[in-house]
Amino acid sequence: MHSASGTAHLYHHRVSYGETDAMKVLYYAEYLHIFERARSAYIRERGLSYSAVEERGLYLPVREATCRYRTPARYDDLLEIRTVISELGRASLVFAYEVYNEAGTLITTGLTEHACVGPEGKPVRLPAWFAEICRGGKKQ
Amino acid sequence: MHSASGTAHLYHHRVSYGETDAMKVLYYAEYLHIFERARSAYIRERGLSYSAVEERGLYLPVREATCRYRTPARYDDLLEIRTVISELGRASLVFAYEVYNEAGTLITTGLTEHACVGPEGKPVRLPAWFAEICRGGKKQ
Amino acid sequence: MHSASGTAHLYHHRVSYGETDAMKVLYYAEYLHIFERARSAYIRERGLSYSAVEERGLYLPVREATCRYRTPARYDDLLEIRTVISELGRASLVFAYEVYNEAGTLITTGLTEHACVGPEGKPVRLPAWFAEICRGGKKQ
Amino acid sequence: MHSASGTAHLYHHRVSYGETDAMKVLYYAEYLHIFERARSAYIRERGLSYSAVEERGLYLPVREATCRYRTPARYDDLLEIRTVISELGRASLVFAYEVYNEAGTLITTGLTEHACVGPEGKPVRLPAWFAEICRGGKKQ
Repeated sequence: MHSASGTAHLYHHRVSYGETDAMKVLYYAEYLHIFERARSAYIRERGLSYSAVEERGLYLPVREATCRYRTPARYDDLLEIRTVISELGRASLVFAYEVYNEAGTLITTGLTEHACVGPEGKPVRLPAWFAEICRGGKKQ
Repeated sequence: MHSASGTAHLYHHRVSYGETDAMKVLYYAEYLHIFERARSAYIRERGLSYSAVEERGLYLPVREATCRYRTPARYDDLLEIRTVISELGRASLVFAYEVYNEAGTLITTGLTEHACVGPEGKPVRLPAWFAEICRGGKKQ
Repeated sequence: MHSASGTAHLYHHRVSYGETDAMKVLYYAEYLHIFERARSAYIRERGLSYSAVEERGLYLPVREATCRYRTPARYDDLLEIRTVISELGRASLVFAYEVYNEAGTLITTGLTEHACVGPEGKPVRLPAWFAEICRGGKKQ
Repeated sequence: MHSASGTAHLYHHRVSYGETDAMKVLYYAEYLHIFERARSAYIRERGLSYSAVEERGLYLPVREATCRYRTPARYDDLLEIRTVISELGRASLVFAYEVYNEAGTLITTGLTEHACVGPEGKPVRLPAWFAEICRGGKKQ
């Protein structure tokens, strides 16, 4: 993965029954939930929770999401999600995700592109303090 | 079903892949989503959407939910949900649900008990206009 | 939308509370559930349910999904999803979706690319009978 | 909590955006997902995963679920779920759950009653090896 944010952040997720479907695999929409968990953990480990980001007046709604499904995940699988910020724009950013199973097989990749907006939903420039967090700068 | 609200309201729901699990049945938590859809439709057909109820300052958070699973539902099943208000209290109400499959088999029953609260989350008495809607009184 | 399948199929979906998030909008992963409902309805209205497709030994797992979010949807919104098959390949097909709100605003677009596989998960050619259904040929 | 299984098992769960609703609280159906995660972790920590239980021919479908909502949980809350087996019947068992937030407030309680069935869905007696696991007996 190309990264604008240093090394990938690792997040682990156990597949539950409720996430599987009648094909006995992780349902395709569930990866977007897992990506959300992974990027929240990414931000949290850099010293700020996403709710704290919102309290500072910055919102990051998803503008586009893409997911490429290579190999199915199954109930009880322990997944590893590797997350980087692959692009830091003037008023947007892109998270890239790779999902591996315990055997180390790459099962799914994805991207989420986020707009930077203020409390009233208007576009704002990516604040310097947030860019610094993304680059893994000093913890707040 | 005992009813404080006249005849049962009918709501239909098609089981999607995303709602099933690896046992090839409708996942048990999904019934609570379906109950929410059924009671929203119940209120809407009595002339007021639940969002209009909230605009009038009345909120109905769930205080307790019970679900009894008798027979599984499967992908593509077309379910019929029969909803009544089984209890109209001073500051609470209870919805009762029966879920049937296309063969007419009762597959699941449930109850949701709701508190009546105002915009700040404090308990309020069930307003007369809402009780009238519940009893199937004149459309608004 | 470019279409390999004639006119778009229309599907309607009411946004429930359970599908919204704390931003008071339809959560981004929920669109993939709605897309699944829309393409199942698409196939069903052409005379064959997706479960009947599976009984004939054809499975259509999602290989890639993309979703572009333009305007948020909110609780109680009645959405219209317009679905076409935009591509019919030798062993794959692509569904394209446009989601409109009641004001007629295009709020979200999406694509799902599906592989054609047999009961053991191996790639198979898109069967003629299925291509005919996709092109809106005679009902079965 | 009354327990037939010794001390409560602790499971932690971070509330994601996708689990919240437009009331800015954890949606009521999500607790059943969390209960499933908690009881799977309960069994796993006793030395056997639930998928291994199924491989031995024992299935534990939910027959009844109850959930009592006391205080809302919000985005980013780190919840602690305390799980016990409150009843071990001849062919059924009951899990009891208490959910606490980080302030130590009891926010939700719940019960799930499970039937013991074999691979064909017929009721079977609770096997001795499973009862031993439930009682926290020797790890397998």
